[in-house]
Amino acid sequence: MKKIDGGVTAAKGFKAASVRAGIKESSTKTDMAMVYSESPCAVAGTFTKNKVKAAPVKWDQHIVYDCKVAQAVVCNSGVANACTGKQGMDYCEQMADATAEALGIAKESVLVASTGVIGAQLPMDKICNGIKELAPKLSEDLEAGHDAAVAIMTTDTRPKEVAYEFEIGGKKVVVGGMCKGSGMIHPNMCTMLGFITTDINISQELLQEALSEDIKDTFNMVSVDGDTSTNDTVLLMANKEAGNEIITEKNDDYYKFVEALHNVNVFLCRNIAGDGEGATALLEVKIVGAKSTEQAKILSKSVVTSSLVKAMICGHDSNCGRIMCALGYAETELDPDTVDLFYESNAGKLKIVENGVPTDYDEEFATKILSECEVTVIADVKMGECEATAWGCDLTHDYVSINADYRS
Amino acid sequence: MKKIDGGVTAAKGFKAASVRAGIKESSTKTDMAMVYSESPCAVAGTFTKNKVKAAPVKWDQHIVYDCKVAQAVVCNSGVANACTGKQGMDYCEQMADATAEALGIAKESVLVASTGVIGAQLPMDKICNGIKELAPKLSEDLEAGHDAAVAIMTTDTRPKEVAYEFEIGGKKVVVGGMCKGSGMIHPNMCTMLGFITTDINISQELLQEALSEDIKDTFNMVSVDGDTSTNDTVLLMANKEAGNEIITEKNDDYYKFVEALHNVNVFLCRNIAGDGEGATALLEVKIVGAKSTEQAKILSKSVVTSSLVKAMICGHDSNCGRIMCALGYAETELDPDTVDLFYESNAGKLKIVENGVPTDYDEEFATKILSECEVTVIADVKMGECEATAWGCDLTHDYVSINADYRS
Repeated sequence: MKKIDGGVTAAKGFKAASVRAGIKESSTKTDMAMVYSESPCAVAGTFTKNKVKAAPVKWDQHIVYDCKVAQAVVCNSGVANACTGKQGMDYCEQMADATAEALGIAKESVLVASTGVIGAQLPMDKICNGIKELAPKLSEDLEAGHDAAVAIMTTDTRPKEVAYEFEIGGKKVVVGGMCKGSGMIHPNMCTMLGFITTDINISQELLQEALSEDIKDTFNMVSVDGDTSTNDTVLLMANKEAGNEIITEKNDDYYKFVEALHNVNVFLCRNIAGDGEGATALLEVKIVGAKSTEQAKILSKSVVTSSLVKAMICGHDSNCGRIMCALGYAETELDPDTVDLFYESNAGKLKIVENGVPTDYDEEFATKILSECEVTVIADVKMGECEATAWGCDLTHDYVSINADYRS
Repeated sequence: MKKIDGGVTAAKGFKAASVRAGIKESSTKTDMAMVYSESPCAVAGTFTKNKVKAAPVKWDQHIVYDCKVAQAVVCNSGVANACTGKQGMDYCEQMADATAEALGIAKESVLVASTGVIGAQLPMDKICNGIKELAPKLSEDLEAGHDAAVAIMTTDTRPKEVAYEFEIGGKKVVVGGMCKGSGMIHPNMCTMLGFITTDINISQELLQEALSEDIKDTFNMVSVDGDTSTNDTVLLMANKEAGNEIITEKNDDYYKFVEALHNVNVFLCRNIAGDGEGATALLEVKIVGAKSTEQAKILSKSVVTSSLVKAMICGHDSNCGRIMCALGYAETELDPDTVDLFYESNAGKLKIVENGVPTDYDEEFATKILSECEVTVIADVKMGECEATAWGCDLTHDYVSINADYRS
């Protein structure tokens, strides 16, 4: 298993393209992307649990749950196509239709994704022109994949892509992906938009199961601001071009794939968290010694979503009471009097609380640890052997600036 | 029922005092307060559900649950006496003991409250000196009550006190209170510290029931930052000095008292929310047309705690999709396609969403409404006849400034 260059075009047979359709007139950034596989793909997907679902979420659920096969994804940033009623649903279908026509495939082979402002209708003339431009630009180059990762960004400050390679029966298999997400990030199932491509040959059922299981430990453990978006979508397409014998059961090959998928997802999640709106640091919260994974997850998410803990990371100020407080109000079992807390980063590791009471730790060293751009808080709750990790970021002035005036 | 001047000393027989004990050396503010009644009081209390409970919370639970009678409260700001182990518990008892000695009453008649930094031990010499100074300063003046409300403040920008007067069988009855709370406010039972005094004659059982019921619609509906403190406490003391016939059943007199208590609590809650750390505006979220009060509460708290909605209020920027999004991820029933949304403030009222889709509303007018210092968001979910209101505030740069560097 090794990490390789590239993202959605790293796996064999996948092409990507991006254009500036001008959806947000004030922006000079590319704002549409397309991903395409010449061979039909088994497709898996996970979607937001928000009851307010954007039109493309409803469309993709139909494709993933009913059709189970797809060849293309078309995505725009700038407008989310959420809270747009029947007209929004019609526009979404028109996006699929225009893409299908441009690529010469069936409308039901096209997945659609939108991200941006909620409550506005898509500018369909620009979207349709964009689609016409995208189709002839499709390329297998790694750069085309990279540019697609840029085109789907909204308030993200950097594109997020990664790929892993491994072997099955002598055949090279690649899993690569890209995602976007910076604000409104608290996936209750997945993050805003994630697209993962692989050339593995695997049954659609196992593909979906691998994705559904893995997001519980990855995308579902990310929180930037506690807001679960209306558009959260992770799509996973497998086009079989690696040429391995089809995987139809949970054998060693399946678990190799699961490991690669997990590596891709963890990388993307850490990048979403670290690039949270206004963030200066990735905050990783690891609970060890829990009675169950469920308990560890509840505790880690409680700490990673605490505004006061997040502000403390921003200030590099060791106020460990806030962490104890956030553990204490999590809705799960806890004996505060047995908790040990640690800070860890590239600067070192330090025990700050022992059995629920602050140790006589070196404040200066604590500040040094908390000043790194990736900080881990570890809580040992001493109740068992289970653990979980959640990812978030600090709460900064820039988060407020970005969101107090997002639309302008 | 009328609103009158004063706070904890408005009711007959209650005295208060405040001093600067120097708990936070850098501060010149008063930091200790005492409330005292010459006659023993029936006492009721509600406390944080955080599993990390400060020592004074444990002490007060003992007094309220086991003793049910008290005469004094002693309170310090600066140090929370939470996460302080056995030593913290000993110190808390010493505070009660010193107060009992100074007042010539039993230790079990003294309630204790602390607020401030978690994880630090109390400076007991300063605390004990403070208590000795407080006792002789006790006064029935309204000003003494006001000064006590100032002394318990931490990051609050203004003291919070109120009193109501009504009659029972020709006897004048007063309910007055003070509270503090600005950050770490998301009471899962009550807010950080609230002290309510009344001269009514009522059984302890009904006093506790009146408080326990009312906080569900008042203190439990306030959120500044989603963090449930380790110290949340509301205490209600009734010293019988109004001279009314004792209330032992839920008759008309009881409901008059409940109404006065509710008015006091709503006033205090709105003030806590509007004075949230860094806040420039009170955000009130009212859900109408719900199937049940429970559903209305879940929906209103989901909106009032949304970082993106809070930042939008700060920016006076009508981004109604964020409100729809927060309604959608609340863990309760909702049909997004029937939701109507309104903004309301002193500047006017405006429908911004009808049946789940934004109306063609006047943006300029929306901004005007959102620019007031008290803003109400109303959602009609058209499923029934129930309603609920939650109180919070906007998310601002100052919230980050205050909390990124709270201890220094």
